[in-house]
Amino acid sequence: MDLHFTLTGSGDLTAQIYAQLRAAVLDGRLTGGDRVPATRDLATTLDVARGTVTAAYDRLIAEELLESRRGAGTFVAAGCVPPAHATGRRARAGAVRPVPLWATPTAPAPGPGRTAYDFSVGVPDDSLFPLATWRRLVSGTLRRGRLTAGTYEARGTSRLEVEIARYAGLSRSVVAAGDDVVTTAGAQQALDLVARVLVEPGDVVAVEDPGYTAAARLFATHRAVVRGVPVDGEGIVVDALPPAARLVYVTPSHQHPTGVAMSRARRIALLEWAVRHGAVIVEDDYDSEFRFADRPLEPLQSLDRDGRVVYVGSFSKSLLPSLRVGYAIAPATLTAALREAKRVTVWDGDTVTQGALADFLAEGHHAAHVKRATKVYRARREALLAGLTSPGGLADWLEVIPSAAGLHLCTLLRDPVLDDVSIAEAALAAGVFVEPLSVRHLEQAPHHGLAFGVGGIPLERIGPALAALRQVLSASRPARRVDG
Amino acid sequence: MDLHFTLTGSGDLTAQIYAQLRAAVLDGRLTGGDRVPATRDLATTLDVARGTVTAAYDRLIAEELLESRRGAGTFVAAGCVPPAHATGRRARAGAVRPVPLWATPTAPAPGPGRTAYDFSVGVPDDSLFPLATWRRLVSGTLRRGRLTAGTYEARGTSRLEVEIARYAGLSRSVVAAGDDVVTTAGAQQALDLVARVLVEPGDVVAVEDPGYTAAARLFATHRAVVRGVPVDGEGIVVDALPPAARLVYVTPSHQHPTGVAMSRARRIALLEWAVRHGAVIVEDDYDSEFRFADRPLEPLQSLDRDGRVVYVGSFSKSLLPSLRVGYAIAPATLTAALREAKRVTVWDGDTVTQGALADFLAEGHHAAHVKRATKVYRARREALLAGLTSPGGLADWLEVIPSAAGLHLCTLLRDPVLDDVSIAEAALAAGVFVEPLSVRHLEQAPHHGLAFGVGGIPLERIGPALAALRQVLSASRPARRVDG
Repeated sequence: MDLHFTLTGSGDLTAQIYAQLRAAVLDGRLTGGDRVPATRDLATTLDVARGTVTAAYDRLIAEELLESRRGAGTFVAAGCVPPAHATGRRARAGAVRPVPLWATPTAPAPGPGRTAYDFSVGVPDDSLFPLATWRRLVSGTLRRGRLTAGTYEARGTSRLEVEIARYAGLSRSVVAAGDDVVTTAGAQQALDLVARVLVEPGDVVAVEDPGYTAAARLFATHRAVVRGVPVDGEGIVVDALPPAARLVYVTPSHQHPTGVAMSRARRIALLEWAVRHGAVIVEDDYDSEFRFADRPLEPLQSLDRDGRVVYVGSFSKSLLPSLRVGYAIAPATLTAALREAKRVTVWDGDTVTQGALADFLAEGHHAAHVKRATKVYRARREALLAGLTSPGGLADWLEVIPSAAGLHLCTLLRDPVLDDVSIAEAALAAGVFVEPLSVRHLEQAPHHGLAFGVGGIPLERIGPALAALRQVLSASRPARRVDG
Repeated sequence: MDLHFTLTGSGDLTAQIYAQLRAAVLDGRLTGGDRVPATRDLATTLDVARGTVTAAYDRLIAEELLESRRGAGTFVAAGCVPPAHATGRRARAGAVRPVPLWATPTAPAPGPGRTAYDFSVGVPDDSLFPLATWRRLVSGTLRRGRLTAGTYEARGTSRLEVEIARYAGLSRSVVAAGDDVVTTAGAQQALDLVARVLVEPGDVVAVEDPGYTAAARLFATHRAVVRGVPVDGEGIVVDALPPAARLVYVTPSHQHPTGVAMSRARRIALLEWAVRHGAVIVEDDYDSEFRFADRPLEPLQSLDRDGRVVYVGSFSKSLLPSLRVGYAIAPATLTAALREAKRVTVWDGDTVTQGALADFLAEGHHAAHVKRATKVYRARREALLAGLTSPGGLADWLEVIPSAAGLHLCTLLRDPVLDDVSIAEAALAAGVFVEPLSVRHLEQAPHHGLAFGVGGIPLERIGPALAALRQVLSASRPARRVDG
């Protein structure tokens, strides 16, 4: 056998030897019956302890890729390589098609790829994530007694659920105890569970238009009739709600994507409408963690006197989307069904992440992190706002929609002839990723505009990014001068 | 302020001070305007560095629970405590009810609680979990560059999906590449995604009867008409399948709960039936990791020539259920829909666990762990079998259903008058948790028997447990002698 090993100085040498030998067998470089070097010889060649090599061989023997023949040495096992690997064969395909609902996958929104200037919406800055603290808490959760095999029984309220009730109560004045909280894999799973237990096929679900298209798609996959309702400067237009709506999905803190906050009057009107029509309100408290002006308005959940609001939140923006932790805070008439829907479909979320997050909240790291991150995002937001509103600058093309919170700003194109998708494409070609507003519409006549997220772009790049965008806008059409 | 602090020697002292002070505010022991000790004084009292106390106070100030008044000291902030916490108020309830499908939650199977002798089914021994290795791999995954904020775009095949394809190919001769694998939160989510993309309301889904009731419930929540099909010594009775079945759910390696392996002839017959009827087979390779006799039969997935098998697996038995990692290996005609169903409903699973598991597989730890665990479970299984089959012992009451794999053995009660639920209840009162077979039936006339899992019981307890069970059986009815 003449196999080249590359060992890097740090890390698990046994694992490196194991992985490279295994790869060689699996990709056919070594085949059944080939003799591999004696452990002593390989250890000498690689300048490692013999036990390091022996341990790697033992794993491969356990996996039946190698076999040891007494007195003769160690060999690649005969016939151990399944054809799928040796030939790269794929699972057979052909006979089965998904049901019509899923037959035509919708394309996910295009991502920024490798752009110089990334204004992605809905993504926090991962470099702010308090990784060392998190790693310590995860390690602490990975101890005997805290990590149990788990049984598939119903369990009581988790520590994380209690902490989330406290957190939402403190930071958002949500009225809840731990028993009212159902933890989920991000806000998206919370919406999925809500749809399962509240939506019958054919039910009307009202969503904001423009709005969070991923929520609209989710409700549609539950066979709801999804209706888009216009949004104005005070939030969803309550008078335009379809009377048949069984469920109304809203993002009152920072409307997605316009950034508008729902006014207090509108909140009251929406609650009254829901009472009159027997509807449920799903309040997605999207992007409420980062506030830059005003005191926040009370959530619908705490204004609700009737038990018809399901409050949904997540740690995707305040920490990381990849943690996949969100929650629903529901009236007690729904929590048993929501918990069962979760149990029936996924049993539970990742208990290690949940345990670490409970500690993270209980020890005060979350509040401290949000405070630090808000400072960073505020600086970026101010630089962005300055660039977007300076007369003679981008203000000639773009009108900023006022907003007090959240990780992005939305603008409208002043020139009714311009198409935001074309602008976004041209911007991408110039290295600037911005999101067009019109693609967030469902059935209302689309507004054209651009949304700018501040999670993915460092402060010092915002100026150059806006300059590059200005070039793009100038090239597409002469500006219409704006005064002051 | 007279607050008692309990500091434990190890761990984050700042966090301990923070948490105890915060708890006191939240549960009302401290109220707005209360003065807290000067940092210097508290540091002296607690014998810690002053900076330790200051850091705790800073977090509480950031959280607006404390406020610092220049020259006067630090105080509990006025009005910082939301009513929900001070009074323990719950979220309002009343107006909203779930749809009929979810209106009556099914009770989850009762768990063992604190019993002396725990024969729980489907639970591995968490003390075997290689915690130190896992902690190291998780820590390695929690590094900059590996833990990214993530965007909500479609992503390519993950490293874990490639490793699962290799693993299933090596250990189970499943024919697949990484692109055919969709990772999920346990086998349960894999079944949920399959149901979403393949089941229309009213479609007939056939399941084994007795069978895995959680799967039957899941399909029913997708508004399928679920039909139970009898199982004999060779597995599901293909001739009894309802011709209208669009989907057939089976556990061929170790039928749940009987433990029977589906014969090769039956596998071929099932595949032919599916071709004739245009049905999809969902092969849940439940409990295939631990094998104690015979060579395993080829999975339906690799016998399938037609692309109509979805293969489902998990790491819940070979590692821990609480990791929540499973997978579906599907024909290419379905994978896009399955991936979209996952994206629409939960985006993705926990990326840290997924990264650590990819390393765990790639470095050979999984194969080594299964080998070690098999040895432990084999010893328990042999002790259990010996006790169940010894003439003059439990063999007088129970007949073991032959089985070659898996973490439990199933038995039938020889006496047709005995009721397995009553026996299980009497056993539980005597400290022995066993699962009755009859509750696993859907519509077929129930068999009565008891299932014994070996994941939760140490070797040395098996003898005493069976002796206690024998007492229970003797008390319920005289044995009918069995020869030999």
